[in-house]
Amino acid sequence: MPQVAFLECSRCCLHHDATTPQTVCTACAGSLYVRYDLSAATGTAVRDRIGTTEQDHRWSGMGRYRDVLPAVDPVTLGEGWTPMLPSRRNGNVWLKEEGANPTGTFKARGLALAVTMARHYGLKKLAAPTAGNAGGALAAYAAAAGMEAHIFMPKDTPMANQVECRAYGAHLTLVDGLISDCGRMVAERSPKEGWFDVSTLKEPYRVEGKKTMGYELVEQLGWEYPDAVFYPTGGGVGMIGMWKAFLEMEELGWVSGRRPKMIAVQAAGCAPVVRAFQQGQAASQMWQDAHTAASGLRVPKPYGDYIILDIVRQSGGTAVALSDDTIFASLKDWASHEGLLLSPEGAAATAAYDHLIRTGFLSPDETVVLFNTGTGNKYTDVIGARV
Amino acid sequence: MPQVAFLECSRCCLHHDATTPQTVCTACAGSLYVRYDLSAATGTAVRDRIGTTEQDHRWSGMGRYRDVLPAVDPVTLGEGWTPMLPSRRNGNVWLKEEGANPTGTFKARGLALAVTMARHYGLKKLAAPTAGNAGGALAAYAAAAGMEAHIFMPKDTPMANQVECRAYGAHLTLVDGLISDCGRMVAERSPKEGWFDVSTLKEPYRVEGKKTMGYELVEQLGWEYPDAVFYPTGGGVGMIGMWKAFLEMEELGWVSGRRPKMIAVQAAGCAPVVRAFQQGQAASQMWQDAHTAASGLRVPKPYGDYIILDIVRQSGGTAVALSDDTIFASLKDWASHEGLLLSPEGAAATAAYDHLIRTGFLSPDETVVLFNTGTGNKYTDVIGARV
Ligand SMILES: [Zn+2]
Ligand SMILES: [Zn+2]
Repeated sequence: MPQVAFLECSRCCLHHDATTPQTVCTACAGSLYVRYDLSAATGTAVRDRIGTTEQDHRWSGMGRYRDVLPAVDPVTLGEGWTPMLPSRRNGNVWLKEEGANPTGTFKARGLALAVTMARHYGLKKLAAPTAGNAGGALAAYAAAAGMEAHIFMPKDTPMANQVECRAYGAHLTLVDGLISDCGRMVAERSPKEGWFDVSTLKEPYRVEGKKTMGYELVEQLGWEYPDAVFYPTGGGVGMIGMWKAFLEMEELGWVSGRRPKMIAVQAAGCAPVVRAFQQGQAASQMWQDAHTAASGLRVPKPYGDYIILDIVRQSGGTAVALSDDTIFASLKDWASHEGLLLSPEGAAATAAYDHLIRTGFLSPDETVVLFNTGTGNKYTDVIGARV
Repeated sequence: MPQVAFLECSRCCLHHDATTPQTVCTACAGSLYVRYDLSAATGTAVRDRIGTTEQDHRWSGMGRYRDVLPAVDPVTLGEGWTPMLPSRRNGNVWLKEEGANPTGTFKARGLALAVTMARHYGLKKLAAPTAGNAGGALAAYAAAAGMEAHIFMPKDTPMANQVECRAYGAHLTLVDGLISDCGRMVAERSPKEGWFDVSTLKEPYRVEGKKTMGYELVEQLGWEYPDAVFYPTGGGVGMIGMWKAFLEMEELGWVSGRRPKMIAVQAAGCAPVVRAFQQGQAASQMWQDAHTAASGLRVPKPYGDYIILDIVRQSGGTAVALSDDTIFASLKDWASHEGLLLSPEGAAATAAYDHLIRTGFLSPDETVVLFNTGTGNKYTDVIGARV
């Protein structure tokens, strides 16, 4: 396992010390990337040892990629190494089932590593705004690490998110507003209260945890890239993490060839990245009156929008917004034909795939990975009202 | 992968043909076990190939144990190979996290194989009574296989179970009664309607799918037995499946030593197996007025009670019933101290462990595996009302 060498600003490249907790770039407020000397992991010999009994007899999950993660004793609940399932209707379409993670969503990966590092740094009180699922994951990992979690969540977040936070013993504040309002409250109260703010992209290790999705999808395709990746984009941490993974894997000699087109998927009722992409902007504008039943996509201005837009463009991808009706029609379609109860956010990805096949942006013989970011079981109230 | 040789009655040992669908023993109505010639899998060379990249680069889940499962093209949704997590408070206590399965519960394993075989036999319409989670799993796998599912469920089953069945497109009947009432309705209507009844232990392959839990827990402990296994016992299929796995593994030379004490865990409001165990009976009596918020344990008379009781006794185990208050106190304890939101059934297992430590039946230095049979996310309404 490698030592973290330094943290590098995603915007101005300034280096920051990794021996103390950091938030964003001290010069430009950009998000920070974790950098290591990965030379010990170079080559396919290290790669091909991954997942063998030599490496680990038990469940190792995200720890499967310990050769490219910080050398720190992990706080783990069994996150990662989730199923990659071929569609029954087109074997080129793969569903990455992130609902199998602890707390039922992809948020577990980022918060597992954020809490691991917080414990390593000796922090005791963590805080975050959330659209729902990140709150549940933070509450769970904080409980496992014996830390306080202070969570601010819109009051119309699905019931499962509220109940899990309380069960884990987190301090939950329901807010009459959006995640952006919650974020302001966390930023304002954290200094007074002595909370460490683990907001999306204001803390460097959530991206680092999420990068394991990039390693996994490439490994599960036999160490080859797909042609496209569909990613439901609220905060966009996973897309940023996967892109980082692709760059690292190329440096390590673990994969080669053309990187996938990255498709940012949003809801029509909250589509700041799609609008900025279409208008050729480098960053997004705050989306007014955000509304969608895909609660994880109710992020009116992602902090890392400039990185997301850059990745989508560099990759030759695109950004797509779907109506809630289209999203729930795809959710019903995948439940009744594939036997998979997606989250509404995941159903936005499946709907976006259908859309880009119709427009001709992609052809059915291209290999694609669609991210189901969470289990439909956390949306019983939302899905029950629609299906 | 081995061919099924025949199906053997668990009570009178009569052999039945495996080339056509079978239900229970034609002579004595006992449950049938699947038997193979497993000689090709004998020895540690086959065992140690399991899970290597040689065997499978992608997610293989339950298919990891294909050397001991029927040689039939599987209907899979990514079930199996779930995390095994050490407790933070006692490293000898392992939690087997079955909530990571598709549909969020251990029921996925049994129904994956039951539906796989039903498709293999050319069946089109399946039916089952359920306490909740088996219905969701049947609905999902039937949808994946393009079959009809007819599900009968008590009307006070958690909302998540009702919503998922409808989303998967199953035909759902809510019944003002218990699973035993649902079972009578399925038995009565199936012949007229042309449904194949996949009720617990009236169909041979659900046990066979569940046996993978036994293989996994032994593999995840480094091919060694724990001292005890705590199993929330509604229908008890998993306990029967695990015991079968242990016998097979010993024959194969994959494990040796003293088999674990098997602990059947029930709720005080529905404890037919515990009562029969304490009274020295070979089978249970129907439990009157069954009630518990651990809905999966509301099985007033398990069909395989005689097998469960035999296993518990043979293994030197015991049977324990906990009150709902004790169950939910343990659920809250594990959420807030371990970061794991258990199902109420899983929390019955954790509560039972604490109880048997207090009574001295087990000591804290014994290695135990506690089964969390499902994710707490499917019990948002139940947990929300209690925590
Ligand atoms: Zn900077
Ligand atoms: Zn018989």
